[in-house]
Amino acid sequence: MKEIYLDHAATTPLDPRVKKAMEPYWDKEFGNPSSLHRKGVVAKKILENSRKTIAKILHCRPVEIVFTAGGTEAINLGIIGFGRANAHFGKHIITTRIEHHAVLHSIDLLMREGFDVTTIGVSKDGLVDPKEIERLIRQDTILVSVMYANNEIGTIQPIAEIAKIIREARRKRSTNKNSTPIYFFTDACQAAGSIDLNIERLGVDMLVLNGSKIYGPKGVGCLYAKREIKLEPIIVGGGQEKGIRSGTENIPAIVGFAKALEIANAMREKENARLTRLRDWFIKEIMTSIPDAMLNGHATLRLPNNVNVSILGIEGEAAVIYLDAKGIFCSTGSACSSVSLEPSHVILELGRSPGLAQGSLRFTLGRKTTKKGLEYVLKVLRGVVKILKT
Amino acid sequence: MKEIYLDHAATTPLDPRVKKAMEPYWDKEFGNPSSLHRKGVVAKKILENSRKTIAKILHCRPVEIVFTAGGTEAINLGIIGFGRANAHFGKHIITTRIEHHAVLHSIDLLMREGFDVTTIGVSKDGLVDPKEIERLIRQDTILVSVMYANNEIGTIQPIAEIAKIIREARRKRSTNKNSTPIYFFTDACQAAGSIDLNIERLGVDMLVLNGSKIYGPKGVGCLYAKREIKLEPIIVGGGQEKGIRSGTENIPAIVGFAKALEIANAMREKENARLTRLRDWFIKEIMTSIPDAMLNGHATLRLPNNVNVSILGIEGEAAVIYLDAKGIFCSTGSACSSVSLEPSHVILELGRSPGLAQGSLRFTLGRKTTKKGLEYVLKVLRGVVKILKT
Repeated sequence: MKEIYLDHAATTPLDPRVKKAMEPYWDKEFGNPSSLHRKGVVAKKILENSRKTIAKILHCRPVEIVFTAGGTEAINLGIIGFGRANAHFGKHIITTRIEHHAVLHSIDLLMREGFDVTTIGVSKDGLVDPKEIERLIRQDTILVSVMYANNEIGTIQPIAEIAKIIREARRKRSTNKNSTPIYFFTDACQAAGSIDLNIERLGVDMLVLNGSKIYGPKGVGCLYAKREIKLEPIIVGGGQEKGIRSGTENIPAIVGFAKALEIANAMREKENARLTRLRDWFIKEIMTSIPDAMLNGHATLRLPNNVNVSILGIEGEAAVIYLDAKGIFCSTGSACSSVSLEPSHVILELGRSPGLAQGSLRFTLGRKTTKKGLEYVLKVLRGVVKILKT
Repeated sequence: MKEIYLDHAATTPLDPRVKKAMEPYWDKEFGNPSSLHRKGVVAKKILENSRKTIAKILHCRPVEIVFTAGGTEAINLGIIGFGRANAHFGKHIITTRIEHHAVLHSIDLLMREGFDVTTIGVSKDGLVDPKEIERLIRQDTILVSVMYANNEIGTIQPIAEIAKIIREARRKRSTNKNSTPIYFFTDACQAAGSIDLNIERLGVDMLVLNGSKIYGPKGVGCLYAKREIKLEPIIVGGGQEKGIRSGTENIPAIVGFAKALEIANAMREKENARLTRLRDWFIKEIMTSIPDAMLNGHATLRLPNNVNVSILGIEGEAAVIYLDAKGIFCSTGSACSSVSLEPSHVILELGRSPGLAQGSLRFTLGRKTTKKGLEYVLKVLRGVVKILKT
């Protein structure tokens, strides 16, 4: 049977070029970078080269990249590790209610350790209001965490604008001789590979990427953290990654991650244009041919590959199963949280009713998605909706 | 130039059979186990099958295996995660001074959180005395951590005997209506693949394994924890691994890890016999032909592949570099801690002088090690020692 994978926000297949780049590091140059001999030296060199590749794309210094075993761990390091290392300065954090669970639960953990957290909502399009953040910054605010692009609805946040506010707050503190640091963290796992990752332009202080959403290997990610930022390690041991993240470096995965980011960056413009066209056409077709369908998230400030709709009167889960039977793979809510029947916290936050939240369907397009494939999806979807509504 | 890799304790190359087993999961069955559709269901199934494979080898229940991104993370979970979840019962831990840094630093972290730690030394052969542990157990001891086999000197500890003492302590507490739990944790990263991992026979409550020491992939490991044991997660987020370890499961690595353990287990007896013969011959040759050479660690209670010697009057690091120039890859101290000029804490603990600790060389044999190769190493080593001593 035909298989149409439209769940690229959950995870992507490995790009054959990435697989090839990883090849020498399985059983030829398989050394431990901490070893003194040549096998170790080669491993260390490739590790640092991968770091440089990523730093170049991010427009940061290689020393500002910490490799981790994935996005979740990098988020934990950037939030929990940051919070613990800076708690003596202040214990206030600002975040949004539509963050990924890795962010929300990291902040919950800091709350249990005495932090005070202010969460903000979003507009009905899923957008954060930078002015609201500006108003909420207190003298003891040390961290603002706003995701770059949402994993469920694809809404892209005004990151550069928020970063400007944080910098302004920092300037004011400096003038007032308040030495409490304030930093801006962004989870860019969903943004990586499709939107701008230039740190200089974005103005963020910490940013997280991972491999499994950009046609790279699973089990690898990184935290960009501005050099001056103090972090307490989440994982301790041999002192790798300058003592910030212990554990033998996963060279094949790191090489693959760097390669995947390089490829995504090179393909970005052309692929974004193609996906945006497909996305907008697909959304229009759904809106015009499926009764009671509503787009979740912003119409234009959204990831080029993200289509998220709520259809009144259907159960998202049932629709996923029916579509699955026809070889179409999509999701309801987010695959990133363990299988749960709760309606999505993100869709609810848009002001949708629980019924509409439960009736949400997310299609995330990818490099192999074609118009022909989407035409088939539309045909099947119309039938499924008809069945489920009766 | 000929390459003779004798640093298998630092890391092993990937077994081609393992690589083949991982193959379908890169770009064919690449799904996220949390996805509801078929790609997710297949990923979930292979995840659980891998867990079953490992559980079968360990003689435990699949639910008792938590996958992590490596040995270090699994150790952090089993020590820090355990300590934080059980601190209300008691705050005393017993461990040895020859543990891996991942264990020592995890325990240090608990000390900073208020734990009281008793560390014990070892005999000049590197052996822990179970009776000493018995004497040191207090009413508030909740954890005893003793590594299965040492990564530097290869000494195998009397794990089953220590486990018996812990069980006895538990029985006594139960009789005395003391509800404080006491558990036995063992870091088996170096033991995996060459010695018995049957939990029932060992009697341990927690055990850590990883992929990169058993010809499996890097970036994957697991913690076995007896079902009743409460752990606080180290990494929070989507709630994978029953909420104990968040982050999208690294399916290719997990499949490879299970396969590697299966292969190692099947090869174990034959390969151990072969390696033990090679090891003992190699040790004898060093002892008889190199002046002032001393074996570090126990002569027989040692990993079949471990040879660790101290040579008076030489610098281990210099020897590693000289040997490297001749295509021989070995280590001094441990590769697992970031490159450091400190003499090994393990060798010092045996009562060796700092000079002898700095003059230690570790050769860890592997599946491709042959007598012919070792003959070449001996020849080169004799020359290197001669040069370094003058």
